Amino acid sequence: MAEPKKTDLMEKIVSLCKRRGFIFQSSEIYGGINGFWDYGPLGAELKRNVKDLWWTTMTRLRDDVAGLEATIIMAPQIWKASGHVDTFSDPMIDCKTCKGRFRADQINEIPCPQRPSKMVNECGGEKTEARPFNLMFKTHCGPLESDDNVCYLRPETAQAIFVQFKNVLETSRQKVPFGIAQVGKAFRNEVTPRNFTFRSREFEQMELEFFIKPDEAVEAQTGSLAAVGAEGHPGEPQPNWGWQMWHKYWVEERIRFYEGIGLPRTSLEEYWQKPEELAHYARATVDILFKFPFGTQELEGIAARSDYDLSQHERCSGKPMGVFDEDLRGAWGKLSKEKQDELWERYFEARRKYLEKAGETPEKAAATARANADGLAKGQYIPHVIEPSAGVDRLILGLITHAYTEVTDTDDKGKSETRVIMKFHPRVAPIKVAVLPLLKNKPELVKKAQEVFALLRGHMNAFYDETGSIGRRYARQDEAGTPFCVTIDFDTLGEKPEMLDTVTLRHRDDGRQERLRIGELLPWLLARVR
Amino acid sequence: MAEPKKTDLMEKIVSLCKRRGFIFQSSEIYGGINGFWDYGPLGAELKRNVKDLWWTTMTRLRDDVAGLEATIIMAPQIWKASGHVDTFSDPMIDCKTCKGRFRADQINEIPCPQRPSKMVNECGGEKTEARPFNLMFKTHCGPLESDDNVCYLRPETAQAIFVQFKNVLETSRQKVPFGIAQVGKAFRNEVTPRNFTFRSREFEQMELEFFIKPDEAVEAQTGSLAAVGAEGHPGEPQPNWGWQMWHKYWVEERIRFYEGIGLPRTSLEEYWQKPEELAHYARATVDILFKFPFGTQELEGIAARSDYDLSQHERCSGKPMGVFDEDLRGAWGKLSKEKQDELWERYFEARRKYLEKAGETPEKAAATARANADGLAKGQYIPHVIEPSAGVDRLILGLITHAYTEVTDTDDKGKSETRVIMKFHPRVAPIKVAVLPLLKNKPELVKKAQEVFALLRGHMNAFYDETGSIGRRYARQDEAGTPFCVTIDFDTLGEKPEMLDTVTLRHRDDGRQERLRIGELLPWLLARVR
Repeated sequence: MAEPKKTDLMEKIVSLCKRRGFIFQSSEIYGGINGFWDYGPLGAELKRNVKDLWWTTMTRLRDDVAGLEATIIMAPQIWKASGHVDTFSDPMIDCKTCKGRFRADQINEIPCPQRPSKMVNECGGEKTEARPFNLMFKTHCGPLESDDNVCYLRPETAQAIFVQFKNVLETSRQKVPFGIAQVGKAFRNEVTPRNFTFRSREFEQMELEFFIKPDEAVEAQTGSLAAVGAEGHPGEPQPNWGWQMWHKYWVEERIRFYEGIGLPRTSLEEYWQKPEELAHYARATVDILFKFPFGTQELEGIAARSDYDLSQHERCSGKPMGVFDEDLRGAWGKLSKEKQDELWERYFEARRKYLEKAGETPEKAAATARANADGLAKGQYIPHVIEPSAGVDRLILGLITHAYTEVTDTDDKGKSETRVIMKFHPRVAPIKVAVLPLLKNKPELVKKAQEVFALLRGHMNAFYDETGSIGRRYARQDEAGTPFCVTIDFDTLGEKPEMLDTVTLRHRDDGRQERLRIGELLPWLLARVR
Repeated sequence: MAEPKKTDLMEKIVSLCKRRGFIFQSSEIYGGINGFWDYGPLGAELKRNVKDLWWTTMTRLRDDVAGLEATIIMAPQIWKASGHVDTFSDPMIDCKTCKGRFRADQINEIPCPQRPSKMVNECGGEKTEARPFNLMFKTHCGPLESDDNVCYLRPETAQAIFVQFKNVLETSRQKVPFGIAQVGKAFRNEVTPRNFTFRSREFEQMELEFFIKPDEAVEAQTGSLAAVGAEGHPGEPQPNWGWQMWHKYWVEERIRFYEGIGLPRTSLEEYWQKPEELAHYARATVDILFKFPFGTQELEGIAARSDYDLSQHERCSGKPMGVFDEDLRGAWGKLSKEKQDELWERYFEARRKYLEKAGETPEKAAATARANADGLAKGQYIPHVIEPSAGVDRLILGLITHAYTEVTDTDDKGKSETRVIMKFHPRVAPIKVAVLPLLKNKPELVKKAQEVFALLRGHMNAFYDETGSIGRRYARQDEAGTPFCVTIDFDTLGEKPEMLDTVTLRHRDDGRQERLRIGELLPWLLARVR
């Protein structure tokens, strides 16, 4: 007997993904293209389920979120305003000897293409200084390939939400606090795509921008901000929540989402970025990390972004991005002079600091900040933002690695075989139920099985299979991650009269079987797969 | 009283789309970007519904179609093999005087940028010869902007399906005839985007590639091909269908789909492309046209593409794209020598013609075709393809223009007001039901309304509204296209005891009202909105 092959877990998972049609290399027959992955039949269903659940949870089941679906190519000024044109880059070093280009922070871990026994930093080739390399994919829009026509594939979906903020506000009957949700593709020309689909060049995001009042407005209206103290979910949103409560709320909401699709809290880690790690506009960022086989890595970031984004687009587009709040104006008038002054001063200072950082002269910054703070007293402000931003592909990869389970069956003769069960949560599983006649050469069994299949398939993704032994068919479904198998046998047909119109329902994770009436099958399944 | 404004229908529709949040101009605050459009909250729901219905109809409700979700950027060799690099272009003319670039076939309809009173062909500027301008968006993948790194944004989703054909075949337990379905973005750098979202540069497609046996294989197995005669839908697929029956089948299936989402046959036209209009590889193409306000234009094309696509990728990638069919091999052995020779000869001729057109020498073409025809006798062939290819955005635009209805209400004083009803089919309508308490200042009504809302929203996109008169709220929902409104009034609370726990259900299209028990509401709605 051969030694068990020493492949590591990720290799086995990549291999299963290809073998069962979860994930294929893009353009495989042409040798592939680095950093791009396609979803096969099972993968496409899994991904649809995850995106649909996010969308339903975020928009349809909430009163305070509206949806958006914007284009991938947008006006290039957007990426100037957001900072991506100037700063979304990695430092790169060119080797004049081998003509390779390498990330400056990776030259001591990447082998030299010409002398693979050496790393790039020790191969002796002549190197340039490190220079910034922008990660946005660049193209030209319109018939001329001129600098005037440069545009970019969006490196994130968030900016479209900021840019359309006013249009959504005006058409959706929402008032701050409210959010705008979007799911869609984004592109980053990563120098070193890696870890299967975790870091790829084309990927999908699910982003919510949740717009809230500045703390000064909340305080003016409710007297004081809710204290951020206790652990855990803070419950239903309240009018006296400042940005810290909203931020905490969204962290907890998002963790609940992951728990609800089968990633338990123990598989996740919450990482609060240290002050020195924060982006310059962020007040706080929590990363939700997942324990991947290749390390504990980010699934989602939840950032408190202050009013940076809308302010930038207001400055750069010249279009007002603020809102007017009648109630705030009323509340302000009832404050004591001291309180008014205190809130005015705080708002003024925050705006002044932002404007100076954004490059305004101290005089201009102070003048504009003064106008902003005067505006606040009249009920006007630029909303702040809490941004829960999740990567679809890395979540799919998390679900796949979490579901992957090997079991070893040993038969009577002591021969053992290792096989895979994909323990997906029923809500995300690509196939919800498989319908199997015990034997395919008994027309009564086949006919009944097809009736049951017809009953279920209009309500969920169901699969009919009559080929092979029943054990082999169960094993195939285990590998596809199908949580339930329904078997039609002779008892279903009434061989034991009291069993007429009942089926065997088999549970994927432990092989447990129970007997259910056909009439109760659909509600039983629906309660578990939705 | 002012004269009614003479805006044309499309202008009104564009204006409604913005006002109600169906469609916004992309990057509007930066002056927009020509040929790109965003979907607002209502538009995003409408689009999701259409895509979900297509996906469910095409994959989940069929045994013979598998899904795929591939990347937008793929290996550039794919577009060489498909012909897009060489021939997917418009002829363009440059003006040396104004530096403008124009489509050669449009110079007599586009005004000169410098002398707008003249068309480009008569402005006197010095022009270049017409040169091809490729419509694919080009970018670079990886850190070097070199010719080696050029890649393209896919101009169609179809090619990914062909390229992954073998991977899907091997993992999905499908056998020819079967299809692969995909929904996703595609990009064409149109010189003149126009007609709102009809011809844009970034758009979404829903494409099915349905793989069938070559006619010679069908004939070998079933004796003769089914006759293509009668009008209408040919019914359930049969083993003796050749490409013409399959083509007809898909044309009828697709028309049924459009009927099922609210576009009646009278709003559509079927256009059979004339032989001289066909792409060189196509045996037949039917366009399904819709009567848009700006003309009768294509929604979907259903092409019989022979075995061109898989053959091209086999030739260009060097990877075999054929399938092996045990039953065909068996059937072939039982044919008479005459029949074998006849089928062999026909297959040989078809393959030889393809190979010569593809650029092989006559000798090479004949030799390869001979090997192909010998392969057929052993059960091997390259599948042929029927391709129903639909544009999502133009379908959305069709649904919107078809739904758009103006009604004029005249009040007691003879004052009349024109308002809009968006008569979407309930299956695609963005909001399925609105729940409205008659009055918002009666807590019992509000409480009951929120209970009903909570009952429904987990099952469909529901909307709660308590602001404004009930008539105004109905009108708002009419404009959003919500097919049903549920009003909670004092009878609901039992003012008339026999009416306890009943609600008023109002129909959007005719304002008709009926009384339903709350207990029957959910099944009543589900039967109509799914």
